[in-house]
Amino acid sequence: MAVMEITNDNNKFEFREGEFIFKILQKNGIKIEVPCGGVGTCGKCKVRVVGGDISPLSSEELEYLSKDEIDRGIRLSCLTKAFGNVKIELLNTDENHKILTDGYMPNLKINPPIAKKIINLSECESKKNNYEEIVKTKLNVDEISDIECLKALQKSFKTGNLTSIFLNDKLIGIEPKNNEKVYGIAIDIGTTTVVASLIDILNGTEIASETMINPQKEYGSDVLSRIDFANKNENGLELLNKAIITGINKLIFDLATQNKIAVENIYEVSIAANTTMMHFLLNISAESIGKSPYLPVFLSGKNILSKDIGINISPFGRIYCLPGVSGYIGADIVAGVIVSELLKTEKNVLFIDIGTNGEIMLSKAGILSSCSCAAGPALEGMNISYGMRAADGAIEGIKFTENGVELKVIGNTNPVGICGSGILDSISEIVRTGLVGKTGRLINSNSSDKEYKKLIIEKNSKKFVQISKNPEILVSQKDIRQVQLAKAAIVSGFLALLDENNLKMEEIDEVIIAGQFGKHLTVESLVGSGIIPEKLGKKIRYIGNSSKTGALMCLLSKESREEMESVSKDITYYELSTKENYEKLFIDSLNF
Amino acid sequence: MAVMEITNDNNKFEFREGEFIFKILQKNGIKIEVPCGGVGTCGKCKVRVVGGDISPLSSEELEYLSKDEIDRGIRLSCLTKAFGNVKIELLNTDENHKILTDGYMPNLKINPPIAKKIINLSECESKKNNYEEIVKTKLNVDEISDIECLKALQKSFKTGNLTSIFLNDKLIGIEPKNNEKVYGIAIDIGTTTVVASLIDILNGTEIASETMINPQKEYGSDVLSRIDFANKNENGLELLNKAIITGINKLIFDLATQNKIAVENIYEVSIAANTTMMHFLLNISAESIGKSPYLPVFLSGKNILSKDIGINISPFGRIYCLPGVSGYIGADIVAGVIVSELLKTEKNVLFIDIGTNGEIMLSKAGILSSCSCAAGPALEGMNISYGMRAADGAIEGIKFTENGVELKVIGNTNPVGICGSGILDSISEIVRTGLVGKTGRLINSNSSDKEYKKLIIEKNSKKFVQISKNPEILVSQKDIRQVQLAKAAIVSGFLALLDENNLKMEEIDEVIIAGQFGKHLTVESLVGSGIIPEKLGKKIRYIGNSSKTGALMCLLSKESREEMESVSKDITYYELSTKENYEKLFIDSLNF
Repeated sequence: MAVMEITNDNNKFEFREGEFIFKILQKNGIKIEVPCGGVGTCGKCKVRVVGGDISPLSSEELEYLSKDEIDRGIRLSCLTKAFGNVKIELLNTDENHKILTDGYMPNLKINPPIAKKIINLSECESKKNNYEEIVKTKLNVDEISDIECLKALQKSFKTGNLTSIFLNDKLIGIEPKNNEKVYGIAIDIGTTTVVASLIDILNGTEIASETMINPQKEYGSDVLSRIDFANKNENGLELLNKAIITGINKLIFDLATQNKIAVENIYEVSIAANTTMMHFLLNISAESIGKSPYLPVFLSGKNILSKDIGINISPFGRIYCLPGVSGYIGADIVAGVIVSELLKTEKNVLFIDIGTNGEIMLSKAGILSSCSCAAGPALEGMNISYGMRAADGAIEGIKFTENGVELKVIGNTNPVGICGSGILDSISEIVRTGLVGKTGRLINSNSSDKEYKKLIIEKNSKKFVQISKNPEILVSQKDIRQVQLAKAAIVSGFLALLDENNLKMEEIDEVIIAGQFGKHLTVESLVGSGIIPEKLGKKIRYIGNSSKTGALMCLLSKESREEMESVSKDITYYELSTKENYEKLFIDSLNF
Repeated sequence: MAVMEITNDNNKFEFREGEFIFKILQKNGIKIEVPCGGVGTCGKCKVRVVGGDISPLSSEELEYLSKDEIDRGIRLSCLTKAFGNVKIELLNTDENHKILTDGYMPNLKINPPIAKKIINLSECESKKNNYEEIVKTKLNVDEISDIECLKALQKSFKTGNLTSIFLNDKLIGIEPKNNEKVYGIAIDIGTTTVVASLIDILNGTEIASETMINPQKEYGSDVLSRIDFANKNENGLELLNKAIITGINKLIFDLATQNKIAVENIYEVSIAANTTMMHFLLNISAESIGKSPYLPVFLSGKNILSKDIGINISPFGRIYCLPGVSGYIGADIVAGVIVSELLKTEKNVLFIDIGTNGEIMLSKAGILSSCSCAAGPALEGMNISYGMRAADGAIEGIKFTENGVELKVIGNTNPVGICGSGILDSISEIVRTGLVGKTGRLINSNSSDKEYKKLIIEKNSKKFVQISKNPEILVSQKDIRQVQLAKAAIVSGFLALLDENNLKMEEIDEVIIAGQFGKHLTVESLVGSGIIPEKLGKKIRYIGNSSKTGALMCLLSKESREEMESVSKDITYYELSTKENYEKLFIDSLNF
């Protein structure tokens, strides 16, 4: 074992010689950004090696390092191995982006919609004959209309101190004390997962992040089944609404208490979500999203009182709901557009959020169009024979090798089932090794000359690929069909968008994979399973949970919020089901 | 008995020959405006006598009738007696003012802040891709931000009908139906009495009016004692707030049900009140109004959600609180300024609201200044030996005649006590008959040559004036002193205002007596008791409850509301206690 010393963090730990530096850092709880997953294609994981026994500079690194950086000892930590004791300096002051717990965020000027102004009332020598007038003048506002503000105002004249809270230059709250603290919460409500981050709005730092399974799951696993639940049960909508509100309150409470922050000092919750989740959040029926012509009740961004929907933060707290584009291109995707700066690019960029619902956005040099496709839950490990969530025991990586099947299991325990990224890996391997042909049909275990045919077994005259013998874990022909359908949905979706925009595949400069889930899918499996055509494989970039990142940007920057509002109106939405020849495109996309 | 027939109302009733026409009308529930109390000094109670046996035209009537009116048979109903069967035509279409249940209102153009717009959604052929956008365009609004509006919007697309509610051109509500009705409530919250009127906002008519004792009375009879109660009891403020909110809700409920109007069709409650009552209404402590420098928390007009203070009207309902001038010149007095058009006059007008707190406003040809004086509760019959409210059994009128003491008792029953107007009448008579001298001291029953000295009796060596023998009802020397203090407070108040404005008594053109209570005080008793100097007696005009009328005007007219806001800022307030020589002025004003 050798020792790694972090020179600017007073930290030391042992490691097994020969490991990549970024792995050593991650294992020891040091946050290091590796959006590409550690494959040397994003250049974000730079560290400075102050001294020690490390692998020599590789040609791949040269692509991402300037001469000056090389001179200073900067290296990509995902391509540099440590062979003995080593001293590392972390580079926290990256100029191009901030480090989030799970994703990329463009550089932004901190100019939050929520702001405070603190007044020392003993300094107010005024001839005004009422408290409101005295403070109005001092705060330069037209009126103080909120009753709770008036009550606090009165208390302020007893304490002598007054802290005013503004949202977009409108007075929204008064506290009878000196209180500089301003925290916010950025939330992504996914159909499956809810992520919340606690943000220090004053300096823009992410203090902590928490995740939970969307508690609405017990009423339906996807958007349509929840809409159906709400339609068929008298209090269905209320149950769905109560579930998410209770869940969010728990996340906020946990984040606040674990980080010793008073819930009262949280003033805004910024929320990105798909359109249906946003409706349920506001206790508004999404019935009309569930049937043609799929019209939501609202899409525009909403500023509402937190108390109006029962979210427990400051009594003056506000909720910002990000704007969406259509029933199936929600605020989560608009957030992704902002995070990946699709409006500002001069390239042709494909943005894909892979999930039960696949959303695809194309930026043709800044002109945006979008579509959504029902990929189904297979890619997230659902509706699959041995499918499971990404929890301990889930196979997340699979490789067919000469020695058999190599498995990567979450928690390094015995495998229990296969999660989404494992499914995709297995399909990728099944295709690579020729266990299926173009059509996706499994070969016969006895009639083929394929090397890996021994993995195919038959049970009750049905064919399976055996991933693990003990315990037995199989991939069925039906599983393969499920993934094939999902892949076809996504591929036909972006082919349709290319077609509408008169673009050829070769003209795509970049493919952005967004989402909590997407970031666990490797380039290899995405290409191997046919979701991303091979020629685009090298153009893949991962940006993590851009929905939450977009919500965070809207907490920190008025400009980002304005951009959200305007971008949401500039995105064209194509309803695939109404596109001519779409069915043919879909069928053509089924082949591996 | 003879019969009166109302020719334009299909109404007939019997009456005792020789009664005044206005009395017959009032007894039979016909509303007839008599701001002067029926003494022939306001000219407001005109009717047309179509035919019958009536008293001849009097010289007093000639002052108020044009030649044309006389030719048409128009008479003042308070000066015309009916001696036999008679046919009367009511004159409802007065050109100069509307008839209210209790007061004068200037002519005004109906242009209410609350308005509705009804949409037939089946006619909306739109390419917009969400309901909000479709309706925004149709209603020409920027956004629909209220969650309840969004919910109603959705229901509207099921019914096909949508009624939108606007307040000052801002969308505040949506109903999923066709609903043209718009009602409002105008309220005056007096320290003692609360009056509420149900208004049809579409045509500006007052449908009905209800009165109740301010339920806060059990916590203190005047403003200061209630502030004190709130200070000394932990939940004192909450009790006061709950009392008035519950009371107002009852008034509204009664008005609505008795007039078969759905509470949901009431969209705004416009409220005038003194500054302390306004604070309690919003559950805001009035502590600072109770002590020097008497600063209230707020004075400006407030638009708030009815649900925020627990008033039960439409779920989209609003409350408008009229603006005030200072801790002791409240919205009730600003309302009076609007109603009596003091800003528009070119005369010098004194406006006096007589009550526990006396408020005085002076318009020097449209330049407004004001002061308030603690008259004490004596003038309202409180703190007086035999004082009582104006209820059945209360003596409301007193005349010393050769035959003894003539009493006017409410309900025509045996007397029980003396109410405010009776007190003032008795003092007026005591002064007139010389039972007290200038200083207010009762003469000795044996040593004087005064005719009415037999009314003076002694008990335990204290002197009293005997108003009634059986049951015994007395006015004590202390009672006289109480009224004397009240009178001095008011007189010194307006003398101070005259002084500040360099005006002489002779230059006053008009004296307006405002208020529920004031309208029961006759010119005779006001002058006789010395509250109004004799030379101003003939200049007295009564406008009734101008506080409620002002609230009503703010329901019906955007212009009136704007006028309220601007007038409230244009009124100078003099704090009497800080005026030089005020004490001398007060002492000088004590003398009868």
